Amino acid sequence: MTGTIYGVGLGPGDQDLMSVKSDRLIRNAKHVAFFRKAGRKGQARQIVNGMLPEGVIEFPMEYPVTTEIPLDDPRYNEILSAFYAEVTDHLISLAQSGEDVVVLCEGDPFFYGSFMHIYTRVKDHVPTVVVPAITGMSGAWTATGAPITWGDDVLTVVMGTHSEEMLTKHIRDTDALVIMKIGTNFDKVVRALKAGGKYDAAHLVQFATMEKQTVCKLSEMTEKVTPYFSIIVVHGQGRRP
Amino acid sequence: MTGTIYGVGLGPGDQDLMSVKSDRLIRNAKHVAFFRKAGRKGQARQIVNGMLPEGVIEFPMEYPVTTEIPLDDPRYNEILSAFYAEVTDHLISLAQSGEDVVVLCEGDPFFYGSFMHIYTRVKDHVPTVVVPAITGMSGAWTATGAPITWGDDVLTVVMGTHSEEMLTKHIRDTDALVIMKIGTNFDKVVRALKAGGKYDAAHLVQFATMEKQTVCKLSEMTEKVTPYFSIIVVHGQGRRP
Repeated sequence: MTGTIYGVGLGPGDQDLMSVKSDRLIRNAKHVAFFRKAGRKGQARQIVNGMLPEGVIEFPMEYPVTTEIPLDDPRYNEILSAFYAEVTDHLISLAQSGEDVVVLCEGDPFFYGSFMHIYTRVKDHVPTVVVPAITGMSGAWTATGAPITWGDDVLTVVMGTHSEEMLTKHIRDTDALVIMKIGTNFDKVVRALKAGGKYDAAHLVQFATMEKQTVCKLSEMTEKVTPYFSIIVVHGQGRRP
Repeated sequence: MTGTIYGVGLGPGDQDLMSVKSDRLIRNAKHVAFFRKAGRKGQARQIVNGMLPEGVIEFPMEYPVTTEIPLDDPRYNEILSAFYAEVTDHLISLAQSGEDVVVLCEGDPFFYGSFMHIYTRVKDHVPTVVVPAITGMSGAWTATGAPITWGDDVLTVVMGTHSEEMLTKHIRDTDALVIMKIGTNFDKVVRALKAGGKYDAAHLVQFATMEKQTVCKLSEMTEKVTPYFSIIVVHGQGRRP
């Protein structure tokens, strides 16, 4: 019997916001795999603290590079491809030996998730199941205490990595807005929000649904933004009776 | 002691995809409220079939109109406003008498959800808690078996109710795309997808995560589309090693 590779969405970070299905798979896992930066505990692994059964076998998949090499350097793709090939070989051989493997995925696996790099490499070899989850952005807009979209609002989700011109265009052309990957792009994102007419309406949510959660108007922010766990949200103002 | 009004997201439809928190609130509810069309069981209520505890008190909130009056007729807003005022008065008085109330919300409450009309009317009067959930669109893209967004893809979510020109513009200007509220707008949406260059890449998902789930390429669709539970998905093709 071949085992199954489960890409299990963990949601925004609060264990209580995992799906019943993810919760069950994690609490009964024999093998769990998760990405992390070398030398770190790994965010996905930390989310499930206290949930893993005794005797679980952990397979940390440590990125060989993260930000040391620029994304557009050809070596980046080479190194990452070799890494993904290596870890997926291990996952496939586990499944082929009859073991189920739970791959822990922050957020929703198919929404900008790192699991996709595993998924595309394993799905044609062994049974693979993806369990969707609450997105980080959903955790963020819920934290603001106001609906993100009403009626016929258009919602655009854009990464802070784009050019200022591209960002401004997308910011201007939408009703509701989510910006992720802000970190080092923060100043550019702020300029684009001002140019696109949405700076005053923007909220910054950090560590959504987690203990350290903070929500503030972007224009009232005084401290430095947290690189990874920051999401900017602009609410739609659509039709409502 | 004042009770709390919980806006509980149910997710896309599969009970197993509810959050642990929503699951717990529903299984321990004393009062549940939910919207429905008069004469129907109500989709939110049907999702929780078999989960409600014995003796639960149900409060169906029946829309006085749905599609009988056009959205732009001023009477539509008047009638809906009176309806929302009436049902929220009841919910507030329940909470003020010390009772917790679970309001069942399909999908994610703050994402195009009908709960928002309750939320804005009760939040300043009694304690209100919103429990986010997996969106219907997340159920839909997971059903397609392919990631919706990679790397720096832009995702746009747009309703089929917009003009063909507006739809075409948004379809052209994005990488990944989700279209909801398709029903009677189906032919217009198809024309806009063709004009925007994304028709051949579009998938139609109906009844995502539910027993009746179907997934097909839009261009290969032969049957009539289901008005309410249909979502069109176009996957981003962004950067990947």
